Amino acid sequence: MKIALNGFGTVGKAFAQILQEKAQTLRQDYHLDIQIVAIHTRTRGTLYNPNGLDIKTVLTRNDYHDLPDATQEAFLSLITHDEIDAVVDVTPTDLQTGQPGLDVCRQALSAGKHAVLASKGALAVAFQELQSKAEQTRSHLLYEATVMAGTPAIRLAKQALAGCAITEARGILNGTTNYILTQMESGMTYADALKQAQQLGYAEPDPSGDVEGWDAAAKILILSAAIFGLELTLSDLDVTGITQITPEDIAAAQAAGERYKLIASITCDGGSVRPMRLPLTDPLANVNGATNAITYRTDLMGDITLIGAGAGPRQTGFALLSDLIDIHRRG
Amino acid sequence: MKIALNGFGTVGKAFAQILQEKAQTLRQDYHLDIQIVAIHTRTRGTLYNPNGLDIKTVLTRNDYHDLPDATQEAFLSLITHDEIDAVVDVTPTDLQTGQPGLDVCRQALSAGKHAVLASKGALAVAFQELQSKAEQTRSHLLYEATVMAGTPAIRLAKQALAGCAITEARGILNGTTNYILTQMESGMTYADALKQAQQLGYAEPDPSGDVEGWDAAAKILILSAAIFGLELTLSDLDVTGITQITPEDIAAAQAAGERYKLIASITCDGGSVRPMRLPLTDPLANVNGATNAITYRTDLMGDITLIGAGAGPRQTGFALLSDLIDIHRRG
Repeated sequence: MKIALNGFGTVGKAFAQILQEKAQTLRQDYHLDIQIVAIHTRTRGTLYNPNGLDIKTVLTRNDYHDLPDATQEAFLSLITHDEIDAVVDVTPTDLQTGQPGLDVCRQALSAGKHAVLASKGALAVAFQELQSKAEQTRSHLLYEATVMAGTPAIRLAKQALAGCAITEARGILNGTTNYILTQMESGMTYADALKQAQQLGYAEPDPSGDVEGWDAAAKILILSAAIFGLELTLSDLDVTGITQITPEDIAAAQAAGERYKLIASITCDGGSVRPMRLPLTDPLANVNGATNAITYRTDLMGDITLIGAGAGPRQTGFALLSDLIDIHRRG
Repeated sequence: MKIALNGFGTVGKAFAQILQEKAQTLRQDYHLDIQIVAIHTRTRGTLYNPNGLDIKTVLTRNDYHDLPDATQEAFLSLITHDEIDAVVDVTPTDLQTGQPGLDVCRQALSAGKHAVLASKGALAVAFQELQSKAEQTRSHLLYEATVMAGTPAIRLAKQALAGCAITEARGILNGTTNYILTQMESGMTYADALKQAQQLGYAEPDPSGDVEGWDAAAKILILSAAIFGLELTLSDLDVTGITQITPEDIAAAQAAGERYKLIASITCDGGSVRPMRLPLTDPLANVNGATNAITYRTDLMGDITLIGAGAGPRQTGFALLSDLIDIHRRG
């Protein structure tokens, strides 16, 4: 399987590193040999070798100008090359435009290449269009990385629970806010907890995407399309972050034997992201720190809860690998 | 897909009922049409119609003597018929002999029919033999129902986490004992909690298989073979039940901020079932009542925990259906 990589930041590098570490296992256990033939970055150039790049060398380089034309246009043309089977997008997400991943994803699927995404933008903006394109060209559009990183929330819903009707999904889909709420439970103020989350690398210098609920909301858009077939946009969701939660709110919840969690939820009627007080008997109430979790409510099985890491370069890199293994298994 | 059903107790009937309820969905969503063409019971006879039995009628009948010869031998011969694609075994489990499911499973796989099991006996006794037979005849051996019923513990490990190395599995794999321990936490004695579990139908009149840990141990044998490729028998496992746990033990754990759980665990070095005191920060510590849970420790993702129902006729029936959907998807 030959792949082109759009983006080469921490996630892209972790993914390349994992491919290197797992090369032998993948060959032995799955008869799968994955080669990266192209890497495109917005600022550092484009690498290309139709026989496969030497990842070990690439990981030590800072300048990627193998090709004279390092524009996105040139990359869009490159990914239609015959030898390429799949395009993996690990660019940063713009939730309004879906770019730069959207154009790359459109082009890949139109050319009959599989598209595997870690970026949420393209799906948040154009899920149905991309899904239809994939069906038309008999290619696969996979995106396990976009919700809970490599914790297989999407594969659980779409494959392992196939045959059950899912009536609701509700989860803790943003680790930064869950970390902050957990720290506030042990007496920290919101401001101090946020500062600590930033120091640990959980929160961005501008934390608004996390703390105002937009990151979780984008994941809800993806789940609502993937599970319920809904075509929603961010403005259809009722989104409230955690910035207004006070130490008094936290204390009042604790006194009542409850815990505040930022709960993203979705049914066939729509979705929301908002802080909720959960009783300690709810499995989601016991998910602390940067960990994520999701509960699917189903017709035949009642509630099924999955708990695991929701972020991190290697965890996201694994999600990309798991999608490629899935594509390979589908043949 | 035409299937033969070995056994028709509460699980078999719930499975047949689910097939009826989901017939339209299965056709629409998966282009899958499942027909039961044979049902064999040890005491009530054998039903057979190569064009498919009318399940609605069958569910209202008490006598199944369609065929004059209702012996297991006759059924073993019947399942080799051309029209049969898969055999589903829902007989009670004998963990020592693996019968009656073992002979049926051997015969099915030898004849190139897929085998889907809810019974643990055959796998606990002859996992590797059956797996090899399936590989030889290019048929599938699936058994999601045997561990945590329809909560997809096996599909999570084998499919959704493919690409991760699982280094340990530890879980609450028996709902009866977890229910008893939970009731003891709220002050009940072991004897009273057991009586209540029996009244609710969680525990058998002879509860030893549950409370002495053998049910969980059989599941550990299956997981150890499925995940780690080990060939263990019950006597290789270190098994302790919950019969010796006193109200004083429970109180001491509570005072230390911990909870007793009957933990079944397995690594590549072997497995055990024993009561353990878990800190409340462990996701397994917060799984109460008859609910089951499993935590996989992995190289790339750290800990991944799955929580859900671990028993029940409909939950087990769904597991059988999910295996059939999986076989259909593999084509």
